[in-house]
Amino acid sequence: MKLATFNAGQGDELGLVTSADTLVSLSRAAPQLAKDMIDLIARWPQVEAEVRRISDEAKDTIDLNSVKLLAPIKRPGKIMAIGLNYADHIAESNLGTPEHQLWFTKAVTSITGPFDPIQIPKVSQAVDYEAELVAVIGTGGRHISKAGAAASVFGYCVGDDVTERAWQHRTPQWSLGKSFDTHAPIGPWITTADEIADPHALGIRGLVNGEMRQNSNTKNLVFNLWDQIEHISQAMTLEAGDLIFTGTPGGVGAGFKPMKFLKSGDKVRIEIDGLGAIENTCAPEA
Amino acid sequence: MKLATFNAGQGDELGLVTSADTLVSLSRAAPQLAKDMIDLIARWPQVEAEVRRISDEAKDTIDLNSVKLLAPIKRPGKIMAIGLNYADHIAESNLGTPEHQLWFTKAVTSITGPFDPIQIPKVSQAVDYEAELVAVIGTGGRHISKAGAAASVFGYCVGDDVTERAWQHRTPQWSLGKSFDTHAPIGPWITTADEIADPHALGIRGLVNGEMRQNSNTKNLVFNLWDQIEHISQAMTLEAGDLIFTGTPGGVGAGFKPMKFLKSGDKVRIEIDGLGAIENTCAPEA
Repeated sequence: MKLATFNAGQGDELGLVTSADTLVSLSRAAPQLAKDMIDLIARWPQVEAEVRRISDEAKDTIDLNSVKLLAPIKRPGKIMAIGLNYADHIAESNLGTPEHQLWFTKAVTSITGPFDPIQIPKVSQAVDYEAELVAVIGTGGRHISKAGAAASVFGYCVGDDVTERAWQHRTPQWSLGKSFDTHAPIGPWITTADEIADPHALGIRGLVNGEMRQNSNTKNLVFNLWDQIEHISQAMTLEAGDLIFTGTPGGVGAGFKPMKFLKSGDKVRIEIDGLGAIENTCAPEA
Repeated sequence: MKLATFNAGQGDELGLVTSADTLVSLSRAAPQLAKDMIDLIARWPQVEAEVRRISDEAKDTIDLNSVKLLAPIKRPGKIMAIGLNYADHIAESNLGTPEHQLWFTKAVTSITGPFDPIQIPKVSQAVDYEAELVAVIGTGGRHISKAGAAASVFGYCVGDDVTERAWQHRTPQWSLGKSFDTHAPIGPWITTADEIADPHALGIRGLVNGEMRQNSNTKNLVFNLWDQIEHISQAMTLEAGDLIFTGTPGGVGAGFKPMKFLKSGDKVRIEIDGLGAIENTCAPEA
């Protein structure tokens, strides 16, 4: 199933994408089901059958193009992101392959919708795109083994780990440069894990104004998602709706000579096989 | 005022600490006021007069020692923490004074209560204490100026930026080593900003098993809190209940030769003038 958060002029609603151009409002079909996406994920074992019934019925469909798709999860508990996790991106970054998984964070206030603007901040201009597969935690927990990691994932979506390179690199700590408002577009919806046979075999592409800049496959991850979940859950409890940004392939703007940073008006499109695409246009911070 | 979150066997309640050994339940006196501390902070302009009235009346007081004090904010939106921000701590870390403010994060799942155990994790043993003044954001916003920063702070509490040194340093990114479950004890309550004449003139102490290890004053901050708020709000929107860990003075365990890491049974006490004290005993991760 494809679960969306959308607005059709009646406030934020949960929806099921039922075809390439239709959606059903879960919030209207079953108002008591969940108050938002995280609540739905947390209650999934109790509500899945009902959601599936509504999906199969597909009554009262809405034109997908008539609604505004929002970030499927507007306010996760946490966003964990791994750096230097595709060989070609490591090479273009002039950094070595990390011996240990290298984790940073994105502030939850950086989340924005799949078709909303990416802000070029007032304080800096070195804004870059990073196409990423994003895993959405379902069951979560602590000390999740590699073997048990797949069962802890609720689903997947497309993400852009937008990065302000000057702030990223002017101290050794990346999190602040990764956390500007609007610098975590996600969507267009969450595809449940049962629909993705292998999250490590998905084509992933990043385009700027139609020009292919990143073109890889999640099979090229250095540390795969199961390694990642095992590792971070040794330290922290993962919870329903937590997001894991799994790394970006080569082709980011900073990898070009001269560097190609984003400017106002640029359209950034990130596509992942089976998960759809997000497209965000850059605009000056208001 | 001193605002606490506590449990007296009737679920989590909001409370007002009215003397050294009494507390009034806000949740019982005015159940409609707010559902939790973040909600109370967000609604402060509307509810302050009522809270003050309840504080002044101080009816139906409860023995402070009969309740369990919890983390005043159990689930902030974000926790930002600055590193290398006292000269003596910079010296003991064998690192230079940063040219730019050096920010990392603590996962919101690392929050624990002011008197709850600090876990010595299964995966590592290099656990260290860091006494810190914690600012609680009230009004928040983006692009807060130094001059306007004080008005954006709701209050202050005591914090321990507990750190797992091996995970902190085995990659260049600190956030994972700073984010183990139970490694952000805060409390014992939030003292509202109006009660603290100058947050940059507070004695701050860290003790392990009664031995004074850290003994400094917030006047020694390299980047003061107003600098900090101005800086991070250039990147991100600060929101009600967000926490800022403002840095730790010299005397952490890693600064000794040989290093003095925490072990099960150790009692870590952090005190700040005017804000009270928290005391957490180390225990093996269950």
